[in-house]
Amino acid sequence: MITGTNQIGNKSSKEGTKTFSSFDPKKNTATPWVFHEATTEEVEEAVALAHQAFGSYKNCSGRQRAQFLRAIATEIDHLGDALITTYCTESGLPEGRAKGERGRTMGQLQLFAQLLEEGSWVEAVIEHADPQRQPQPKPDLRKMLFPLGPVAIFGASNFPLAFSTAGGDTASALAAGCPVVVKSHPMHPGTGELVASAIIKAAKSSGMPNGIFSHLHSAGHEIGQQLVKHPKIKAVGFTGSRAGGTALYKLAAERQEPIPVFAEMGSINPVVLLPSALQTDLDGWATQYAASITLAAGQFCTNPGLLLALKSTTLDAFIAQLSKEIVKLEPSCMLHPNIYDAYAAGKSDLAAQGGVTLAADYEKETAANTPQPAVITVNGANFMKNPKLHKEVFGPFSVVVRCEDATQMGEILNQLEGQLTGTVLGSETELVKYTHIVDALQSRVGRILFNGVPTGVEVNTAMVHGGPYPASTDPRFTSVGTSAIKRWVRPVSFQNWPNTLLPDALKEENPLGISRLVEGNHTR
Amino acid sequence: MITGTNQIGNKSSKEGTKTFSSFDPKKNTATPWVFHEATTEEVEEAVALAHQAFGSYKNCSGRQRAQFLRAIATEIDHLGDALITTYCTESGLPEGRAKGERGRTMGQLQLFAQLLEEGSWVEAVIEHADPQRQPQPKPDLRKMLFPLGPVAIFGASNFPLAFSTAGGDTASALAAGCPVVVKSHPMHPGTGELVASAIIKAAKSSGMPNGIFSHLHSAGHEIGQQLVKHPKIKAVGFTGSRAGGTALYKLAAERQEPIPVFAEMGSINPVVLLPSALQTDLDGWATQYAASITLAAGQFCTNPGLLLALKSTTLDAFIAQLSKEIVKLEPSCMLHPNIYDAYAAGKSDLAAQGGVTLAADYEKETAANTPQPAVITVNGANFMKNPKLHKEVFGPFSVVVRCEDATQMGEILNQLEGQLTGTVLGSETELVKYTHIVDALQSRVGRILFNGVPTGVEVNTAMVHGGPYPASTDPRFTSVGTSAIKRWVRPVSFQNWPNTLLPDALKEENPLGISRLVEGNHTR
Repeated sequence: MITGTNQIGNKSSKEGTKTFSSFDPKKNTATPWVFHEATTEEVEEAVALAHQAFGSYKNCSGRQRAQFLRAIATEIDHLGDALITTYCTESGLPEGRAKGERGRTMGQLQLFAQLLEEGSWVEAVIEHADPQRQPQPKPDLRKMLFPLGPVAIFGASNFPLAFSTAGGDTASALAAGCPVVVKSHPMHPGTGELVASAIIKAAKSSGMPNGIFSHLHSAGHEIGQQLVKHPKIKAVGFTGSRAGGTALYKLAAERQEPIPVFAEMGSINPVVLLPSALQTDLDGWATQYAASITLAAGQFCTNPGLLLALKSTTLDAFIAQLSKEIVKLEPSCMLHPNIYDAYAAGKSDLAAQGGVTLAADYEKETAANTPQPAVITVNGANFMKNPKLHKEVFGPFSVVVRCEDATQMGEILNQLEGQLTGTVLGSETELVKYTHIVDALQSRVGRILFNGVPTGVEVNTAMVHGGPYPASTDPRFTSVGTSAIKRWVRPVSFQNWPNTLLPDALKEENPLGISRLVEGNHTR
Repeated sequence: MITGTNQIGNKSSKEGTKTFSSFDPKKNTATPWVFHEATTEEVEEAVALAHQAFGSYKNCSGRQRAQFLRAIATEIDHLGDALITTYCTESGLPEGRAKGERGRTMGQLQLFAQLLEEGSWVEAVIEHADPQRQPQPKPDLRKMLFPLGPVAIFGASNFPLAFSTAGGDTASALAAGCPVVVKSHPMHPGTGELVASAIIKAAKSSGMPNGIFSHLHSAGHEIGQQLVKHPKIKAVGFTGSRAGGTALYKLAAERQEPIPVFAEMGSINPVVLLPSALQTDLDGWATQYAASITLAAGQFCTNPGLLLALKSTTLDAFIAQLSKEIVKLEPSCMLHPNIYDAYAAGKSDLAAQGGVTLAADYEKETAANTPQPAVITVNGANFMKNPKLHKEVFGPFSVVVRCEDATQMGEILNQLEGQLTGTVLGSETELVKYTHIVDALQSRVGRILFNGVPTGVEVNTAMVHGGPYPASTDPRFTSVGTSAIKRWVRPVSFQNWPNTLLPDALKEENPLGISRLVEGNHTR
């Protein structure tokens, strides 16, 4: 049952008088649920509890933390249909997607549990003493990773489960040993509340300290700002808009004690179509890209918003085919009227730019909050001189650029900002022939793909979901996959520390049996 | 020969009309050398060249980069006595220290060369495809670390070789594959110029691209700010004051494209003296700490500036002994009159605070710019209520706090800001008995030591030289040791990329023979 309360550690609380409701975009009406905005005092209490909980949580073993993460996954599963229904009501997304995303969310929690159980993620490094070394004896020095402290997390609108309350940011921070305070996303506070209740149940059954997790409702910015500025918050995770992520990043940098912020802020995910791709499989790529561009109403961070190709009659044929395929697909509902309105405005704005042609525009009427997908085309020169065309239009939309030649294509790529992904369609021969293009693409993305679509983000050890700004605020980290844990930890060296009192990961006898770097060599 | 010129890639240049001289603190007079401040245009040219050089340098193999680093070490050695003399003239430090630091600088370059030759530092991670996986096929995904781009480096005053022009920041950035633009330290521009000439010689003999390294003179702030704000600079390394590092950090956060800044800003390096240490070896610790506090006129980032102990007659005896030892040692010259003046002012200021007693003060007259070491004492309550006493006084100075009891000692530690190091003197039994103290210390330091002195920083795989702010601007990194390279790199994932066109580190057959994580297991 959704009660509209905040979760302040183990306590449900609704002290605030300011309320808001979530919205059902399919019915185009507010949901019946009323949420109480967290008060300044509730935020303060949540952070104080998180700080207190950190004192014991940081000393929990990897196995204990793993058990907690697995318990969260189980409790999310136990929420059953209520979670799916709430998710669909608040997001306008279909049931299949809800179930898929629930599976992914549980899978992420289990993946981090596995990482903790295996244990080598702490990067234990050992250098033994050498008392005979000249001119100075060499000390015994051992280092490993420790949690930073309480983390504030801001969920994404477009993944109400997998990138929100118990999503990848929360899972990785809890795995690292950091208590989490979530600023609930105002577009799915009911979904968030249910998931928060599952986390609290899991925390209690796993014997975790009160304050390990809190969940705060707010439709405005103040609560989030209070969190980011709080001296006891030691890092921030954010998934959302460039404006939002950048604002929090700057706020954190202005603190008396600046703290790390990892904000993933989306991108236009450029796709380079080299000639052979269109020559060998024009229809296939048109179908795949029509599906990728419109998937979940184009509301993926990795949505391909920019296709670059050399001008040719084959390209014209591809654009025609892509356009045909795109308008064939049934449009789907967006998350919220605000997102729908931003899409409609962005699309009109870009379609009206100089030199732009509307190649595809879904013309049939659509239901409430359901966008009409579109593809625009422009030549390379017009694209280059108009930075508006380089910006993301969040939704089922893509810009196809007819490049004059490969040189211009390289110039265009070199003008682009940082991106989550970049894709090349073509042959191996072309990858060699167009090295400068591949090079330009690789230098500004977190993930580079060959002959595929960028939508679909694997959650494993090799994923990078991040990239140079504005894809993220720090290209050295990822928000998806096991390495996401690295955002919330710092190394500590122990010098000449007694072996029996070292953390297990650093003890000489390696009681955890983890992989360690000893005098520069990996050993177990 | 010192010519006062800037090094703009391979070109010597002195277009500017603004000049300054360095200072000989021992003779208390300016050196004969006149340096031309870099002009705005020279900065622009250096960065443009670095950007250009990055295009080819990032594709150099690890072996090529290693050869370059080894060549730099050799060329520094070839500078011979001229380097040692210049170093001593500009720093006031003795010849033995100059030679030791030269050895360390060469050692650091060789250590990174080894790291590159071994190759596993790129953290290659492989997840093989599984086309049969349900509900979606699993793609082939491989990631590794790539350089960020040109890095701006600001050397430290107190290590004119090991933390300056060719110091740890430069060595790690060049190792990572990043061109470097050094803002020369105005207290040792001549030393910097000689080292820069060695780097350029090495770059030429190793066939490195023009622009891989530049060296810019400036006595003011503008050149540094221009560098940090330049869109083609992708990261910043700094060692120096809290004010300087924080200012550059904030400047970088305000850029259109924010970039990572690693600033190491020193600390007071708290030392906890548990009762048994004083009971078993009062004289020994007094002697060791007198030496550590006054080493190189106290001008080490890891200088122990704060000693905490439980009040007792044994502690009184220790303070007396420490004071006696400190005034026995011959004081040595500081780097510059500005640093000497700041020391004298800081010392007087702290000695005049409420409840403070001057326990040791070197009373004999000293030579120019030669500080009179001092130790002050204060009780726990007075220390806690006066934040001035928590700040670093850069020089041969330490505060001994007489704590009421272990609870108060824990409270004091919990009040302290982030620190590079923390040290515990005592017995193993005490480490267990005083867990809350060890815990409080560990949670705010980059390195924790048992029964030693914090001065003396090993350069190896297990070192952490960094820590929570204000020790550094990002506790997740270190500026000393092989892991320092991680500041300048970001991961990139390759999805379904043709094996033959992958970087060698990611090719299926592992041609480099490096250690890789394959489906979560370390393999070679």
